[in-house]
Amino acid sequence: MSVLEKAVTVAPTYEGDFVLEGGLALECGRTLVRPALHYAVYGRLNAERSNAVLVCHALSGSALVGSWWPELFAPHGIVDLERDCVICVNLLGSCYGSTGPGSVDPETGAVYGPNFPLVSIRDNVRAQAELMDSLSIVKIPLAIGGSIGAMQVLEWTILFPERVERAVVIAVAPLNAMGLALNHIQRQAIVDDPDWQGGKYLPGVQTGEGFKGLALARRIAMLSYKSPKLFAERFGRNPNRNGEDPWGLGNDGEGLIGGRFDVGGFLDYQGLRFLERFDANSYLAILRMMDLWDPARGFRNAEDAYGRILARLTFVGISSDWLFPPCDVRALADQVLSAGAAVEYREMETDHGHDAFLAEQTELVRLLNLAG
Amino acid sequence: MSVLEKAVTVAPTYEGDFVLEGGLALECGRTLVRPALHYAVYGRLNAERSNAVLVCHALSGSALVGSWWPELFAPHGIVDLERDCVICVNLLGSCYGSTGPGSVDPETGAVYGPNFPLVSIRDNVRAQAELMDSLSIVKIPLAIGGSIGAMQVLEWTILFPERVERAVVIAVAPLNAMGLALNHIQRQAIVDDPDWQGGKYLPGVQTGEGFKGLALARRIAMLSYKSPKLFAERFGRNPNRNGEDPWGLGNDGEGLIGGRFDVGGFLDYQGLRFLERFDANSYLAILRMMDLWDPARGFRNAEDAYGRILARLTFVGISSDWLFPPCDVRALADQVLSAGAAVEYREMETDHGHDAFLAEQTELVRLLNLAG
Repeated sequence: MSVLEKAVTVAPTYEGDFVLEGGLALECGRTLVRPALHYAVYGRLNAERSNAVLVCHALSGSALVGSWWPELFAPHGIVDLERDCVICVNLLGSCYGSTGPGSVDPETGAVYGPNFPLVSIRDNVRAQAELMDSLSIVKIPLAIGGSIGAMQVLEWTILFPERVERAVVIAVAPLNAMGLALNHIQRQAIVDDPDWQGGKYLPGVQTGEGFKGLALARRIAMLSYKSPKLFAERFGRNPNRNGEDPWGLGNDGEGLIGGRFDVGGFLDYQGLRFLERFDANSYLAILRMMDLWDPARGFRNAEDAYGRILARLTFVGISSDWLFPPCDVRALADQVLSAGAAVEYREMETDHGHDAFLAEQTELVRLLNLAG
Repeated sequence: MSVLEKAVTVAPTYEGDFVLEGGLALECGRTLVRPALHYAVYGRLNAERSNAVLVCHALSGSALVGSWWPELFAPHGIVDLERDCVICVNLLGSCYGSTGPGSVDPETGAVYGPNFPLVSIRDNVRAQAELMDSLSIVKIPLAIGGSIGAMQVLEWTILFPERVERAVVIAVAPLNAMGLALNHIQRQAIVDDPDWQGGKYLPGVQTGEGFKGLALARRIAMLSYKSPKLFAERFGRNPNRNGEDPWGLGNDGEGLIGGRFDVGGFLDYQGLRFLERFDANSYLAILRMMDLWDPARGFRNAEDAYGRILARLTFVGISSDWLFPPCDVRALADQVLSAGAAVEYREMETDHGHDAFLAEQTELVRLLNLAG
């Protein structure tokens, strides 16, 4: 079942902002002044504040986990809102409510734009911990996330070992060279676009047909989120389903460009849809966060970092994922295990590719429940 | 051993143009008026015209096979210029001497530009056959090529079954959906570039720092020519070897963009170098040729096409190739075998990826000699 086929979404009981009044000192050396964390709450915190489930989102996700990961809330899902209180926090740098490049810098009164500082995964997790403090949540029974969400989850278990009891880390590892290459090319597509204006465009201007660089970056990303087998099954060598002829002339009548194949039509659609919902500078900010994530940074070595972990960890690899290949996820799990943590590794058997944790939620939930 | 480490190139005994005075009627319905085929000859044709080895080049190759595939000519190589006469023909649509989008259309007196017609692999092979006729070459003892070169070789064995005795078809199959997607994105990178001007730029203008779209396309292509394992071994998560700091500011001082990782520096270098040697419209013309190649087209079915083949065929898959995965090459070999042709399949075991047929020539030559 794909996300598109779902009608169900779960509504939050609360959605709002938490402002770090004291600012956030960043790993890069700069300080974010009064940054806001936009977050959503599903269900209710119990009196002991002991029932918070933290869900962390991926690149283009938002705090509204009930909309993009609804199967977690289904009967026999991962969480039960009669018991659990789910909290999801929008990433700093994103464009869905938390402070990001499209926000106004309180110090200058102007939109950050390209002056938005480097915010790391670790910076985000430290900010999230302050939010938890403000809610008087000391311990988190479960933290779960996929991709960049999983980076945050593992970082939580290292930075705040006493606070996380169980962690589910899906489809992630420090990005390998091919992943860095894919991100580099996406970044280049955006900065090469004259409409990007060195990042100084006004937020909102990039929607619609403009901002081709971001649409191109999204197309490249879609390749990396899916698998060759999925593409072969879904699109094959078929002409675009709108009736274009690859042997004919293209939309613009040029002889060098024919009608599209089906996979081209799909990618173009995904690129254009993305412009309606995402911001180019936020995309750059989060690409960089993803590139730089290395949980051993600042520790003597990886073993020192992973040796801090007290949570029980479940790592999930996705068999057809070539952005974060299952061998990389497994190698990370083995490294954490060697450092003394309680680790299990499970693998989703699917042709979908990296996106399977979103596109095949029912299977993910089943795998996690099996994992106990 | 990589191509970069080689000092040896082999010089042609002849390099020149063959003009199809009668024009070339194309599959798309248009006719190329007096197109030129630029070709190179190594060694000498014998009196019987029975010693011609046809080498076909890939996307950005040229007729100068002695420069880009020198190991074929080495002692114990594939060809021996004491015995063989090697002929290599530049593709129509390319920018290395044969008629392409940068050529002047004799009918209008203007550069073809975006009006260059769709020229297929089959059109190219039919043109090459006219060149062979002009040289009184009836039979070709050996035809060999990789990637788009291999498309031409297999097409030769189908269109002119009596003329090819042995064919070596390396790292090719009809492009699968992931390959079509990669080409689609490269095409989009070029046409989104304002400097492309709808294809109406004047050839030569795109060199140097301009024409970012073609440089981006080349970067994307480089991903598909290499393997994740090669990238991991060669670049890992290392910072760019010029000393840039991924945690610092980028070259342009923007906070959203850091110093590059090593793989980013490599890709940028490859992108810029390509601008010095290739033309954007030629790139589009050949991408399209690559997309559309389907040897069964025009026949009742694939078996009818492959059933015509009389040549002995060696297919070579490359174990780490994800542009033309070895399973696709093997499936094609099996299909041709089922149609009754004499087929063997060999696989290059390498981490290099698709480009291995160029980057690991010694290993390729060894594999082919083993194949007898």
